Amino acid sequence: MTRSERPTIVDVARAAGVSKGTVSFALNGRPGVAEETRQRILDAARDLGWTPSHQARALSVSRAFAVGLVLAREPELLGADPFFPAFIAGVERTLSDRGQALVLQVVPEAQEEAGYRRLAADGRVDGVFLLDLRVADPRIALLAELGLPAVSIARPEVPSPFPAVLVDDRPGIAAAVGHLVELGHTTIAHVAGPSHFLHGRVRRQAFEQAVKDAGLRPGPVVEADFSAAGGARATREVLVHKPTAIVYANDLMAIAGLSVASELGVVVPAQLSITGFDNTDLAAYVSPPLTTVRTDPYLWGRAAADALLASIEGGTVDDVPVPAAQLVVRASTSPMLPAV
Amino acid sequence: MTRSERPTIVDVARAAGVSKGTVSFALNGRPGVAEETRQRILDAARDLGWTPSHQARALSVSRAFAVGLVLAREPELLGADPFFPAFIAGVERTLSDRGQALVLQVVPEAQEEAGYRRLAADGRVDGVFLLDLRVADPRIALLAELGLPAVSIARPEVPSPFPAVLVDDRPGIAAAVGHLVELGHTTIAHVAGPSHFLHGRVRRQAFEQAVKDAGLRPGPVVEADFSAAGGARATREVLVHKPTAIVYANDLMAIAGLSVASELGVVVPAQLSITGFDNTDLAAYVSPPLTTVRTDPYLWGRAAADALLASIEGGTVDDVPVPAAQLVVRASTSPMLPAV
Repeated sequence: MTRSERPTIVDVARAAGVSKGTVSFALNGRPGVAEETRQRILDAARDLGWTPSHQARALSVSRAFAVGLVLAREPELLGADPFFPAFIAGVERTLSDRGQALVLQVVPEAQEEAGYRRLAADGRVDGVFLLDLRVADPRIALLAELGLPAVSIARPEVPSPFPAVLVDDRPGIAAAVGHLVELGHTTIAHVAGPSHFLHGRVRRQAFEQAVKDAGLRPGPVVEADFSAAGGARATREVLVHKPTAIVYANDLMAIAGLSVASELGVVVPAQLSITGFDNTDLAAYVSPPLTTVRTDPYLWGRAAADALLASIEGGTVDDVPVPAAQLVVRASTSPMLPAV
Repeated sequence: MTRSERPTIVDVARAAGVSKGTVSFALNGRPGVAEETRQRILDAARDLGWTPSHQARALSVSRAFAVGLVLAREPELLGADPFFPAFIAGVERTLSDRGQALVLQVVPEAQEEAGYRRLAADGRVDGVFLLDLRVADPRIALLAELGLPAVSIARPEVPSPFPAVLVDDRPGIAAAVGHLVELGHTTIAHVAGPSHFLHGRVRRQAFEQAVKDAGLRPGPVVEADFSAAGGARATREVLVHKPTAIVYANDLMAIAGLSVASELGVVVPAQLSITGFDNTDLAAYVSPPLTTVRTDPYLWGRAAADALLASIEGGTVDDVPVPAAQLVVRASTSPMLPAV
């Protein structure tokens, strides 16, 4: 120990030849640390004269070492939405590295408030993620009342005391529309997600704004449910209006759209350009490969978990910027080719 | 109360005009029950002379009202595998209806045992799911030692005291091979999943057995990782052997295979038949629509959660049969057409 300050947990870790996390586990009496190692750590702490700060001890004693995610969705929707597993993967990357668990509670919308209250009352979690933000979302006030640390995915419309991961789908949709306009398209349609989800609504608004900014007349918009079956139905509906390009609110619906076009003898991209949103695993492996918008829910999950753990540890956490969604141009978009 | 037996929780619920679940919540002092309702329930219980059985009380007092899932995977894999979100959706359908939470812990393989020990020691869960069974899986003995109720997905190879959801991929793979043999194919290849996962290995063995049973020579097998990119690479590799049909171990790799074939000018199904496995959402919406094997991880998740909760409540639970995987014939398979 070369510094003059009080010894820290880092000094204990160095003296005992273990990681800071192992020291924390050992001192908090959590399992998973061999008895011999625990003894070595306790000896090193004593030798160095290390004592936990009161605040840190108070925090550690009441800690659940878990964070919560309450989802007011039909459970069936978890299976259909590629956002969910990728986001969870990112969250777990951070949590797994820090020895934390994720408590997942899927509730009917009417029991959402009770779900958060229960997690808080039981001391089952130290903080929560706020996902699927809704218009005038009542959860912000609820969580502030409960005093539960939280991090939201995207900034809510209502004032919020919690840090947000600044997810913004608008530049990606604007880039997709801009790309189609450059290719010479003038009748551009949108297959939208459900309007009661903020991301469904935001993508639709971004589409309408971008079309307007390009000086084009508003194209036809059909709302669907983000599923392949819904995307196929919406594609048949929207093709009645003879658009030369369709901007989809997600890849799943866009890939289903490719298939519907093929079935109807509409050649993509010669007669119809198609863009997706998400850049899912399959986007590069369909025919033709899908032009889409690359987002990174995995990264958002990591960033959200990092911010939540920092909040729980008592730090002041700023909003977290994330890279803007990027257009990935593949073979499903081109200028219209003259009929032969 | 018309019966002569001791009053039960059902009688209390009826007298108080609430559900059995609400009575249970109120009597266990859990939040989410209005004070007025709680009082009415307590009054009804007293009026009826109801007392909790000692066993039920002991159980209820120590209950976490949560079940655990420890996954020794790289978190990144959660985002790629369509099994995971569908299984979780099924689990949550049951848990959500019963007011239970899911504690998800993703750990490095070396810390898997510590992960289970921690969940058990902290009393954080009342039971666990056993997923991603491995060859000679050490978790069976561990969980028996910990005395933690468990349910495995598929029956392990080692003797296990825990009920299993009897998932069996073999009939589905056999049906896919049988279908191709009927169509006249004799050189059938397999793009396999990773052999260190039981389901990757079981599907490959089922493929090899079915080809043998049909009296055919063993076809080429290439192992990949269940991802779209891996499936595309494996397809290029396996096409060198000029098979007339490929059985894929999952849809994601099969859909990528369709795209590789299209890129190489190999016409599906005229020159190459392709089958998938999973019947994911997209299978019916690719070109040509994918012949595949329908499994139901959503149902497995529900069944596993039902069995686990029954085990936790102290019941003896038998293995749970589930419907066998079914072949779904679409347009990606046909007899070979003579070259024109």
